[in-house]
Parts: sequence; C-alpha cells; structure tokens
Amino acid sequence: MTGILDTLADRLPAAALRPMEPRYLEEPRGRWHGLGAALVAPATTAEVAETIRACAQTGTPVIPYGGGTGLVGGQLAQSGTPPVILSMERMRTIRDVDAAAGTMTVEAGAILAELHQAAEAQGWIFPLTLASQGSARIGGLLATNAGGVNVLRYGNARDLCLGIEAVLPDGTVMNTLSPLRKNNTGYDLRHLLIGAEGTLGVITAATLRLFPKPERDGAALMVVPDADAALALLRMAQARIGEGISAFELIGRMGLDFLAEVGPEVKQPFPDHPAWTCLIDLGLSGGADPSVALEALFAEAFDAGLVTDGVIAQSEGQRQAFWSVRESIPLANRRIGAISSHDISVPVARIPAFIARAPGKLAEIGDYRINCFGHLGDGNLHYNVFPMPGRTRADHESERGAIKRCVHDMVHEMGGSVSAEHGIGRFKVDDLERYGDPGKLAAMRAIKAALDPKGIMNPGAVLRP
Amino acid sequence: MTGILDTLADRLPAAALRPMEPRYLEEPRGRWHGLGAALVAPATTAEVAETIRACAQTGTPVIPYGGGTGLVGGQLAQSGTPPVILSMERMRTIRDVDAAAGTMTVEAGAILAELHQAAEAQGWIFPLTLASQGSARIGGLLATNAGGVNVLRYGNARDLCLGIEAVLPDGTVMNTLSPLRKNNTGYDLRHLLIGAEGTLGVITAATLRLFPKPERDGAALMVVPDADAALALLRMAQARIGEGISAFELIGRMGLDFLAEVGPEVKQPFPDHPAWTCLIDLGLSGGADPSVALEALFAEAFDAGLVTDGVIAQSEGQRQAFWSVRESIPLANRRIGAISSHDISVPVARIPAFIARAPGKLAEIGDYRINCFGHLGDGNLHYNVFPMPGRTRADHESERGAIKRCVHDMVHEMGGSVSAEHGIGRFKVDDLERYGDPGKLAAMRAIKAALDPKGIMNPGAVLRP
Repeated sequence: MTGILDTLADRLPAAALRPMEPRYLEEPRGRWHGLGAALVAPATTAEVAETIRACAQTGTPVIPYGGGTGLVGGQLAQSGTPPVILSMERMRTIRDVDAAAGTMTVEAGAILAELHQAAEAQGWIFPLTLASQGSARIGGLLATNAGGVNVLRYGNARDLCLGIEAVLPDGTVMNTLSPLRKNNTGYDLRHLLIGAEGTLGVITAATLRLFPKPERDGAALMVVPDADAALALLRMAQARIGEGISAFELIGRMGLDFLAEVGPEVKQPFPDHPAWTCLIDLGLSGGADPSVALEALFAEAFDAGLVTDGVIAQSEGQRQAFWSVRESIPLANRRIGAISSHDISVPVARIPAFIARAPGKLAEIGDYRINCFGHLGDGNLHYNVFPMPGRTRADHESERGAIKRCVHDMVHEMGGSVSAEHGIGRFKVDDLERYGDPGKLAAMRAIKAALDPKGIMNPGAVLRP
Repeated sequence: MTGILDTLADRLPAAALRPMEPRYLEEPRGRWHGLGAALVAPATTAEVAETIRACAQTGTPVIPYGGGTGLVGGQLAQSGTPPVILSMERMRTIRDVDAAAGTMTVEAGAILAELHQAAEAQGWIFPLTLASQGSARIGGLLATNAGGVNVLRYGNARDLCLGIEAVLPDGTVMNTLSPLRKNNTGYDLRHLLIGAEGTLGVITAATLRLFPKPERDGAALMVVPDADAALALLRMAQARIGEGISAFELIGRMGLDFLAEVGPEVKQPFPDHPAWTCLIDLGLSGGADPSVALEALFAEAFDAGLVTDGVIAQSEGQRQAFWSVRESIPLANRRIGAISSHDISVPVARIPAFIARAPGKLAEIGDYRINCFGHLGDGNLHYNVFPMPGRTRADHESERGAIKRCVHDMVHEMGGSVSAEHGIGRFKVDDLERYGDPGKLAAMRAIKAALDPKGIMNPGAVLRP
C-alpha cells in the first residue's frame, strides 16, 4: 500500500490527505466494519480526478464516501485490498442557484439539509426528504438513488437531477451539468451513474431540479382498520387531491408500541395504539386550504367505513409532531434491534395481500414481532422482524438467513423489489444475483468491465468482483 | 446478403418476413433515403431475439423501426452494408392496464394515439403528446426519448417509463418491466436504452406511468409584445397555477404568416398576426375552473403590461382550434421548405437573449425568413430558417452548413442543447462530436463497444461506426 500513499502524497495538496478515523469504517448501526488504507478529502474535481488516476495506476480500490448513512454496506469493504476512502466532505459548495429557472448546481459533498435551506432561501423547495437529511450528502444520495417520503409526489433522487459532473474510473471528468429539461444528445450517462453506488465513477457535482413551494402545508393522521382500507383511502385521496399529496405513510401498531417501550419519547396521537395509522401530508397552492381538504377527505372516508378515527394538524407544530412519530420509528427499531430488516416494494395494489400473507409465513420459522411501516403511496414498506420481548437479536442469529429469504421470496413472487430505496451495496449482492434479471445482470457486468476494467471503483458493491 | 436472408427464413415464421416497401427507406420529409436488405416484422419478443441473434451471427446491421417519424435519420442507413429493417408494427399489444396503480404494460409497436385511448378508457391519461401521435410507436418514442408539448408538466418519454423489456445486441432478452415506483436493484439500464436510439438494443415492451385525468381542461392564446414578456407571463402563470399548467407554447408571427400563405387552413385567432402569441393549456382538478384561472392570469398580466390581447377558449372545440393553429405550423413549414431546421434548447431564462441575438447573426450569412416557435416552458425552440418569398430551399444549398453552425454555436455558447427532443440520429453525429462533452463521448463509445462489440445495432446512429 505504500505505493498508493506515496503517489497520493506526491499529487495532492497536504490538506486532502487526512488521518483515518473509525467513523469512516463503520455503518450507521455499528454492526459492520470496513477496511481503509487512506482517507482522501479532495477540495476540487481536479483533485478527485488525480485521486482516481492514482488509484487506477496502482490498482488500488477506492470507495466514494458521502455522509456514510447507507444501510447496505455500500461504503464498507470488509475484505480484499484495503481501499482509499474518498470523502466528498470538503466539496460542499452550492455553485449556483438559478431562481428564475428553478435549478441549483451543487457539489457532491453538500448536505441535504443545507440544500433544503438554499432552495428555500430563493423561494423554491428541493423536495428530497428522508430521516438522515442532516448528514446525508447529495453525492451519496444520487449514487444510491435515494427515495424517502416525498417520492409519491416528486420522484426518487434521479428524478430530481438534471445533470451530473463525475470522475470516471480512468480519471476522466465527465461534465453533463445542465439546467435543461430537454437535451437528447447521446446516452443518458447521468442515469447510469445515479444508482450505480460509486461502482462506475464518482459523482462530484449535480444540477438539481427545484419545485415551487406549496403555499400551505397540512397533515393528518387517520386510523384505518386494515391495509385494504389504507389503500382505498390512498385512492380516494388521489382522486380528490391529486398532485397535492406530498406523502402517504403507513404506520403499524408495533411501531407505536416500540416508541412507548424504548422511546424516543414522542406524543402518541392516539391513547390506544391503532392497528394501522396513515400519515397524509399535503402541500397546496392556489388558495386551497389543506385542513379543509383533509376534513372533506376524512368525512367521505368515514362515511365509506375506511377510517375510524383521525386528527388533522391545526398548526405547523402539530404537523411536525405527526412527522416526529413517523421519523422516530427507525430509532426505536435500532434500540429494539431487528433480527432482519427488509426494504421492499411490491405493486401498490398487492400491499394488502403481502401484509396479510407474510406473518403466517414467518411464523413457520419462529415467533417474532413485526414492525411494518413505510411509504404506502410508493408501494414501499420497511418490513422489519424483531425478537419477542425478553429475547434479543443474538438469540436468532441462525434464523436470519431464513427470515430474509422468506420475505424476499414472497416479494419476488409478487413482482416486487428486494431493495426499494436503499440499494444493493454489499449486503444485497446475493439477492441481486438471485432475483435480478439475468439479461440485465449480464449487461451490468459488461458495462462495469468496459468503464472500470481494473475494477477499482467500489469493488464488491452491487456486483461481485 | 444471402446469408442473413436464408438464416432469417430458417428461423422465423414466414409471416415475419415481409417484402420491403419504399416507405421504410425514407424519412418523413422525403429528403433522404436509406438502404435495406430485408424487412422483418416479428410477432413476439422471442422472434425479435431470433432476428438479432441471426444478425449478430452474420454481422448484419439491424435498424429497429417504429413509426418512422424521426427527423434526424435514426431510421435510415445511407451507406455501408444494407441493414435488416426490424419493424415493431406487429407487436402492438397492450399487455396490461393496471387501473388501480395507474400503469400500463405495452408492446413497442403500439401507436401513441392507441395508448392515449387505452389509458382514457380506464380513467387515466398517458400524457406524452406530439404532432405525430397517430403514427409514432412507443418503442421509437422511448428509443428517442421523445418530448412534445406536455414535458413542462409530465416530463419527457423517459420520465413516463417505469421499466422496459429489450433485446440486447447479442440476442439476450432483458426484462425490467415493472410497475414499481421504487426499485434500486442495480444499474438503471432502462434509462440507458431509452434515448440510445436503437444503438444498444431493441426495446420490445415498456411499463408506462399513467396520470390522473385532470377534471377540466382549458386553454388561452395571449399576445405578448416580446419574448421577455412571454417569459414573465410563464413565471406569473407558474406562480399562480403551478402544476396545473400542462403546456406553454410560443408562436412567432412567421408561423401565422406561413399558415396564411400555404395552409393548412386554420382559423387565425387574431386578424393581424401578432409578433408573439403564447398558447397556455391547463388541466385542473379539485373543482377549479380553468377559464376563471386564465381570466385572472390575463387580467393580472394585462395590468402588468405583459399581454396586449388574448382569447380564452369557451369550449373544448375552441381549445382544439387553438391547438390546431400550433400543430399546423410544422406542416406549413414543410410546404415552404426550410433551408435549415433546428431543434434547440437553452436555459429558459436565456430564451429572450437567444431570440434577440440570432437574427442578426444569421443576417451576416444571408436574407432569410425565420419561423421561431416551440415549447417555451421547456426552453425548447424549433428555430427554422426559410428562404425569402420567391426563392427556394435549393437556392441556399451552399449556405445550409453555415446557418446550422451559426445557430448551434450560439446555442452551445448559451449552455443549450443542439438536440432538445429529436435526438442525434445520423444527421447530428457531427454536432454531437463537436459540442458533446469529451468524457461523456468516450464513455458512450466504451459502452457501445461493450454491449455491441460487432457494431450491428443501428450502426452510424448517435456514434460514428
């Protein structure tokens, strides 16, 4: 490894070479740890290109590193040659906000929450919203095509990106930064690098789409008897409110029970935890009142027997309180300690069938608690399996594989995806090989070999090296 | 060529082998003609795969053929080994409409107008809308990432596609058909094939996104003094009506003059042809009235000095009459005969500067009439240069190159695109080489070589063979 360290020291300013810290070598739950030969934090695209060229010349693996919030091990190499960790943390400049066109060109290290603020300062919103927005960086969010709670209205990260600047595996800089909505000049390599999880190059900057800020936001929690009713409520809301629905989240009883059991402390909206609660978030313009729309929806849904109880936010503070219930569930999950977590999607209409069928299948393996919650409007559930009270995750080590296989087989049979929004990383490479389309996999391998013949870019992520 | 014909005859049902007809070998304006060794019209994806495998084995070029409406020669090989023309016309089945989820899986040969009808029959819309929708097929529309008039609201063809089935250059079938909104399982090869113009494979089917049909449509023509005012009107409309604006088109005086001069006969909305007219199309839901919204917009814009005259459609018939003015302009253009046509985009805010600057630059080359019209909301103009009255396109043959170069240089300097929605085909390969990002071009060539090492898929389109 001396070769690469000397080469980097020769070519990069001293400020770009940093002492390695443990936090770069672990994932958010602290369960897995990775290897690292060096930590490089370039200040410019040219320094990124120098780094990649040095790695290409010495055959050194390199892992592009954003906020480190990924949940599938895309940022962690647990075996093989220790990689250079290429952190984008010093490249966080917002190069340009075009308030007339509603676009923003930003460097890959900019943190999502900073982008929210920069857009709002110009009267726009950047709608990508997820729990880790205080630390996730846009480069990583694009590399993993992040989703979150507003996909229903605004799409995934890739749908919010008009162009990218990236360093390819041979050190070439590719610049497709552009605010254009229409630009049909050759293959769309933006979309190839987005979602490739750093295996085809490093995204160094992006031009992002901004959206008009809705005049008024609103939210409601509505209690439904079952997932069928939740789906019918979603359809009713779409028919009445259409594009004004920003998010439609489903919360199962277990999530509320977990919050009561281990915190974090949040105000429970209903004293008896309902079996299923829907969180509906609206953003309306043109003088429309979200509270009025939500009241009308509730009344119609109540008459139709779809909802049994509900509360409509009377203030922005109350809306935030509703969201804090939803956003606190992942933390409660970590405190309980899942045996196996699943980030799945199925065709929206099949959600009720999946929710009805899965517990019985899992009961054939053992006794578990299931916390099912997520983005119903996108058909995306976080379907997480926990030990019964008094037992721990460690008690079920031997069952983890069977649980995962059971859930993923069911999802695959229903035409769903075993990675809806988190990506493949290293933890789901087996799943991709098992469930992925063979023709697509062959083409992916051909593209990887063509663009990264030395296999230096995040090797082991997405595709087996 | 006997080799490929015999091979195809051996492997395909007789019905798939058709006599060649001249219409497959010319482009819509009849200006250019191509070569063709055989016409194959498969009935199934398996037959497409057989065809591609036969071509791969014999090293025969193959051109995927949709409706033949492309304007950049993507469907025409003018030199080299005569290709197999692979027409998708027999694969036009709508395999599935999911009325609950709002998705539709269709074969590549389905005609766009048929898809509109199929979606509307289920209470949804498929919003891709363009002049050739009566003959353009969805496979070609995706292969070229078609745009049209509703991109402002709904995006380009790629944004309307959730998954594809395609035959890759070695005959492998890749199946990523899926109604899922969230599915992060490997490289997004859907977006790589979309817009690749048949050079990386043949799209055989697609899952498309449908959208709720707005409750009420409406339209207005508003006269503005100049492009700055048109842009200000667009911004005002976006601020007031937001996502309800389906299209915002700009029509220059010359287009109206051409209609009066050569037809087709349409009712001119204003007796004196205004310098600039905006066609604004709305689709609103939630009980909102498009006429009321347009009247309010007109009143506010009139007070601000942005519009000087206008008419709001009082019926669907009148709305269609407004659109027939807009949609008849390309036909009038063909009757006049452009010296050079340009499908360009620039950042929306720079449209007025481009419109102000271009005529002076062109006047340095010669005396021309300019018909400038297009999709202002997308920054996409069709900027077409015509002979003065009494002269013909043939009189200016020697100037065509200089005109095109002049317009494209200006567009490139302003950060625009020399192909906004028509693609590269064969006619713009030089432009892509001149203006394209070198890093992107190198990566495109590497991908082409990896997926199509024999160079059989639409050779000469997009990339020089």
